[in-house]
Amino acid sequence: MLNNGLQIPQVGFGLWKITKNTADIVYDAIKAGYRLFDGAFDYGNEKEAGVGIKRAIDEGIVKREDLIIVSKLWNTFHEKERVEPITRQQLEWWGINHFDVFYMHFPVALQYVDPKMKYPTGWKNLDHRVQESQATIQETWQAMERLVDLGLTKSIGISNFQGSLIMDLLRYARIRPALLQVEIHPYLTQDSLVKYAQSENIAVTAYSTFGPQSFVELKWDKAIDCPKLFEHSVVTEIASAHNKTPAQVLLRWATQRGLAVIPKSTHTARLVQNLYCTSFDLTPDQMERISGLNRTLRFNNPVDYLGCLYIFA
Amino acid sequence: MLNNGLQIPQVGFGLWKITKNTADIVYDAIKAGYRLFDGAFDYGNEKEAGVGIKRAIDEGIVKREDLIIVSKLWNTFHEKERVEPITRQQLEWWGINHFDVFYMHFPVALQYVDPKMKYPTGWKNLDHRVQESQATIQETWQAMERLVDLGLTKSIGISNFQGSLIMDLLRYARIRPALLQVEIHPYLTQDSLVKYAQSENIAVTAYSTFGPQSFVELKWDKAIDCPKLFEHSVVTEIASAHNKTPAQVLLRWATQRGLAVIPKSTHTARLVQNLYCTSFDLTPDQMERISGLNRTLRFNNPVDYLGCLYIFA
Repeated sequence: MLNNGLQIPQVGFGLWKITKNTADIVYDAIKAGYRLFDGAFDYGNEKEAGVGIKRAIDEGIVKREDLIIVSKLWNTFHEKERVEPITRQQLEWWGINHFDVFYMHFPVALQYVDPKMKYPTGWKNLDHRVQESQATIQETWQAMERLVDLGLTKSIGISNFQGSLIMDLLRYARIRPALLQVEIHPYLTQDSLVKYAQSENIAVTAYSTFGPQSFVELKWDKAIDCPKLFEHSVVTEIASAHNKTPAQVLLRWATQRGLAVIPKSTHTARLVQNLYCTSFDLTPDQMERISGLNRTLRFNNPVDYLGCLYIFA
Repeated sequence: MLNNGLQIPQVGFGLWKITKNTADIVYDAIKAGYRLFDGAFDYGNEKEAGVGIKRAIDEGIVKREDLIIVSKLWNTFHEKERVEPITRQQLEWWGINHFDVFYMHFPVALQYVDPKMKYPTGWKNLDHRVQESQATIQETWQAMERLVDLGLTKSIGISNFQGSLIMDLLRYARIRPALLQVEIHPYLTQDSLVKYAQSENIAVTAYSTFGPQSFVELKWDKAIDCPKLFEHSVVTEIASAHNKTPAQVLLRWATQRGLAVIPKSTHTARLVQNLYCTSFDLTPDQMERISGLNRTLRFNNPVDYLGCLYIFA
């Protein structure tokens, strides 16, 4: 349960990098039992996800109130006057009248780009340059609080934030973030950040729980050159011991830490395996062995792919 | 040269943990050639440092304008109405009418404690509790900008800040920070943070350049259990090759990266050795070997000694 009373499932479905058949995939995921969908402006598939959801609702498989629909504010909409219009636009794409969770995607403010000109906008403007804007995190957060006031989202959250920036936000937040979503996997365990968020009663969602796996398909050297967690002997041995898949072990390692997870899969069998990853428990020793893989190795770091925006420095 | 045109020496004298004979030590350091003194409210020795400076000036060894006097705003003075009065108080202790650099010591706002009741105040209030205040970094920074307007300091800086918080500050800063002071040594090289600050034309001062050494005297297990850099074979071999001390090698490793350093010593010979640490150059290979010792090992982390305030999470 979040700090605002909202209940969310611990295992959700992540929509990042789903570029085709999104409607079918979402529809199938609902049939498989998924109730949380983690989307974003940046993923470029909100309209299609909405189609899948509408179909499931129209067929009576679920009701809107059974679903937790999550989206995110992209960096180019950080100016206070941009926040409400783009949120309304995103809701229209999804075909719903409120989000359950709406995150600030990154603590990065970029100059506005009209999504009609470039969608999804990405990090670079129409001149192919990364152009920062001067909207402060406080300005953007206060505009997001207004989304709650207006009923456009039930909860607001933050993503890709560091400790001291969260601490600063908590000083001025009228509505506290319900969730923090950050990269967490055995190569980047984020113990301290997780402890901090939990101590402040902010729930944590881990993204890229499978580590390099999420980035290999983007052809990132850092991920390609790194031992795959699915094949790491620590993970595979523990998986064998429980008769589970490495993916399930990685998800269980996260969920047993109290984290929410949002794996993505386009294979029905894996989709179901992922969803039921909480049906077994790792021993404290197994938890520790997996955590022992930590090497503070972050994949999703803008500096690595843009050469600027040192948000994790 | 700082981004506001002020020239500062690359090697200064750090006043942290100088608890006795401060006046004599400062006076001797000036005679030895030091021109920058890095103090803070928190070090509890500003009055004594001022006595040493006054003696050197009175004897005609230096003029005030030859010196760079640095101090810091403590966490208990982050409310905007607290900043100017405590700065004036600190100036009075030093016996000067302006600082050259005045830092925000930590991105941490604690409830006000009257320094008459507890000096130096430290992290805990009169009830021995860590009690945060709601003053935002923006509020405090804007009050510090006013110190520049009033001529109470020539430059303002930030200390113990992370990347995303610096990025946020730069969005609203009317006066940009001239300096960032952070813990840097071969066990915590901070490559990314240094690159970021330098890319923003913010000079970086490294503190605790000798690594665990600075903390062993505080009897911190983390420092005691860690191989001393002064005795590390990588450092001692390079020192022998140059016929220098390990301390000089560690300082040169930092200064050759373009960092300012503020070592402390109470021994005259070492004081002079430290000051002249830029009289030789390490080879690129030696620089790399020392940087290769990085283990992201931070000693000065409030969470470790307070159990809260996750500013580095």
